[in-house]
Amino acid sequence: MATIKPSLAKGTRDFSPLEMEKRNHIFNTLKAVFKKFGYNEIQTPSFENLSTLTGKYGEEGDKLIFKILNSGDYLAKAPSDLLDSKNALKLIPHISEKALRYDLTVPFARYVVMHQHELALPFKRFQIQPVWRADRPQRGRYREFYQCDVDVVGSPSLLNEAEFILIYHEALLALGLTDFTIKLNNRKILSGIAEVIGKPQLIVDMTVAIDKLDKIGLDGVNKELLERGFTAEDLDLLKPIILLEGTNSQKLQALKTVLASSVVGLRGIEEIEEVFSYVEHFAAASLLDKVVEVDITLARGLNYYTGCIFEVKTNEVAMGSIGGGGRYDDLTGMFGLKDLTGVGVSFGADRIYDVLEELGRFPSSAAATTQLLIVNFDKSIEPFTLRLLADLRAAGIAAELYPAAVKLKKQMGYADDKKIPYVLLVGEEETTSGDLSLKDMQSGEQRKVRAEELIDILRNNG
Amino acid sequence: MATIKPSLAKGTRDFSPLEMEKRNHIFNTLKAVFKKFGYNEIQTPSFENLSTLTGKYGEEGDKLIFKILNSGDYLAKAPSDLLDSKNALKLIPHISEKALRYDLTVPFARYVVMHQHELALPFKRFQIQPVWRADRPQRGRYREFYQCDVDVVGSPSLLNEAEFILIYHEALLALGLTDFTIKLNNRKILSGIAEVIGKPQLIVDMTVAIDKLDKIGLDGVNKELLERGFTAEDLDLLKPIILLEGTNSQKLQALKTVLASSVVGLRGIEEIEEVFSYVEHFAAASLLDKVVEVDITLARGLNYYTGCIFEVKTNEVAMGSIGGGGRYDDLTGMFGLKDLTGVGVSFGADRIYDVLEELGRFPSSAAATTQLLIVNFDKSIEPFTLRLLADLRAAGIAAELYPAAVKLKKQMGYADDKKIPYVLLVGEEETTSGDLSLKDMQSGEQRKVRAEELIDILRNNG
Repeated sequence: MATIKPSLAKGTRDFSPLEMEKRNHIFNTLKAVFKKFGYNEIQTPSFENLSTLTGKYGEEGDKLIFKILNSGDYLAKAPSDLLDSKNALKLIPHISEKALRYDLTVPFARYVVMHQHELALPFKRFQIQPVWRADRPQRGRYREFYQCDVDVVGSPSLLNEAEFILIYHEALLALGLTDFTIKLNNRKILSGIAEVIGKPQLIVDMTVAIDKLDKIGLDGVNKELLERGFTAEDLDLLKPIILLEGTNSQKLQALKTVLASSVVGLRGIEEIEEVFSYVEHFAAASLLDKVVEVDITLARGLNYYTGCIFEVKTNEVAMGSIGGGGRYDDLTGMFGLKDLTGVGVSFGADRIYDVLEELGRFPSSAAATTQLLIVNFDKSIEPFTLRLLADLRAAGIAAELYPAAVKLKKQMGYADDKKIPYVLLVGEEETTSGDLSLKDMQSGEQRKVRAEELIDILRNNG
Repeated sequence: MATIKPSLAKGTRDFSPLEMEKRNHIFNTLKAVFKKFGYNEIQTPSFENLSTLTGKYGEEGDKLIFKILNSGDYLAKAPSDLLDSKNALKLIPHISEKALRYDLTVPFARYVVMHQHELALPFKRFQIQPVWRADRPQRGRYREFYQCDVDVVGSPSLLNEAEFILIYHEALLALGLTDFTIKLNNRKILSGIAEVIGKPQLIVDMTVAIDKLDKIGLDGVNKELLERGFTAEDLDLLKPIILLEGTNSQKLQALKTVLASSVVGLRGIEEIEEVFSYVEHFAAASLLDKVVEVDITLARGLNYYTGCIFEVKTNEVAMGSIGGGGRYDDLTGMFGLKDLTGVGVSFGADRIYDVLEELGRFPSSAAATTQLLIVNFDKSIEPFTLRLLADLRAAGIAAELYPAAVKLKKQMGYADDKKIPYVLLVGEEETTSGDLSLKDMQSGEQRKVRAEELIDILRNNG
């Protein structure tokens, strides 16, 4: 077998023990919150039939789906003319019938439709799994990355929307973030605006343009609106809406006036008010002023969402959104199950990781692995140290004996590299006296402890 | 978009909430034990460069690797003669440069080589991730399944082997198994046997044959040995070894006599004795008689293992091995890093799942999701129930309010389907009296509780 220099496939990453601890800290924190709100975990396979995925993500999306080559003689049934003309695109369905998951939404829709007769509706699920996209890799963009979705299908109640606000709030606080904004909009308000302007058919153009307010300012937005078919009069009507300011209730009040003639627009405002009312019933009214912000420039996947739309940003670090989602009314229509309403949000785990790293907010426990390394001075001491090791582990403490009596420096280096907080030095003498030397690797302090004290010390510092 | 009837890709599975809880119970139990022994988690990408995987699993293995089609115009550089002749096999490297992970061993070797300068040796890692094989699916065999590997590289100490016995023992007990056998052999003993018979070149033939003793009996083994080049005299020499009986120390004593002339054979016996001595130092000597069994018919991946070989079987259910592993001396040689010794074992998570299911050994907590459902009688009561819900969740209790005031039967059906253990019935009257009705869904018993008692009740029964 020829020796090859090993490398990673482009756009993929290994996760070291320290990175895994931090990633697991994020995932475990999120899972605990999701479960407290009654969401259960599901998983779907890494690859789906190609036909399940094709056509769900637009033409560009289809190109970014990783296709899996059929096994065996995959060319046997390939039409010769496609091979002769090297028609790569048309050849795909003849040589590939499976593809890697591109997101968690389409597999979830397939899951719901296939399991519809066993599911107790409303079905509340979360799913944390990798997805794969043949994007050009760049800083912060990978070909394999995790998505983390929470959705409920089969319940039109706006209690669900209110609980997503609480979920975001509780989860982000639990992760150590202190200053973030949950932006809220409603597709029906956007429809109402397009309606009162008299250009309902231009709703997508309108929202695409005003969604850019942050980046290009009002002048830029106006320029784009004109290019997209709006008139100067339309801009006059839109301006106060785009520049809407004040508290959430002031904004909603102003919108009520503007949208007075639009049934759908008023319904959108009512929905937000009902969500707020639920949040207040949860005795969490203070959230609404501190954390939640009505933002009618928020659009996100407008072709998809039909009611409330969410987006979450941290205010502590410059970073794109760390989460988002909304209400949709036709998730499963693509698989023949009509009129199943749903609402869901996602957490951007990779971005949250970067934010916590930049702010130094990972708890030290997220780095803790082995609590204690017992130095190996001599094979003759092993009967003593191994029994001690057994006692420590029986008490639930992660501990190791260095597996050979090599130089002390090497053993201490091992503890350092592995970020083991305590090292126990046991020599011949200590096995009889019972006074063991415990070194705190962070402070460098060393003290004598009795074997029977050790468990308590490590438990309290663990 | 045409509606298609959704289906799973062949050989893949969805995991429902209940299945996920049970799978997580297995994985979390294993992880906790691995960590207690100083093993840390890593993850590698789902796909590797095809060149990293090709040639590592034999010709048959190569065929079972799922190849990923290159993105874009993947035929542009494909040689026309291969297309014309429909040479599927030779075309692969021209149209595919990535492939799905086939096992965790080769990616781990790549990881160790690529990260060798950052790793503190000995490097103790565990890895629990899916792998993919283009096998023909059948009962219990899937194209996507999880492997669960624990390995240490860079330490020749037999303490590691001893700890794997403890790890198997502690993990399987923690999972609720009570009667299992950890079989132990050593490649050097097998080499010694082939040596004393005078046919060292036939060691693979010998072990392949005697490995089948369980299935085909001594006559079958003898027949196969004769076919594979052994003589009637050889069989006479082999018979007492193959049929070796008694306690572990009796077996080792008998082997010492048989292998007296083989240096390597005696070394194999010494290694097992040293492993046993370590286990005894751990104050776990009783394990050696109860759980560990020297079995010289055990071969497992002989081309690979160089020292101790493990295999674990449950004695409570008819099932193949639920784990195995061994010592290897050239894991990373394929990537140019020579002489790095390692030892590792794996757990067969799918089989362990089936065993626990068959024996009914999953703890009820592995099914517990939401602890309490609050029935929704009327929207007017929501201010009361939502505040209660907030208090429960603040106390760490997973709880839900049914999101709409639909028929009681439907709400109770939801609790049933989701296996929620308690349901709280709060009507108009209860919001003023404060006496709430709590129903235990398993016993059917219903009693009055005060809101402030509720948290304690649910905590104690959770």
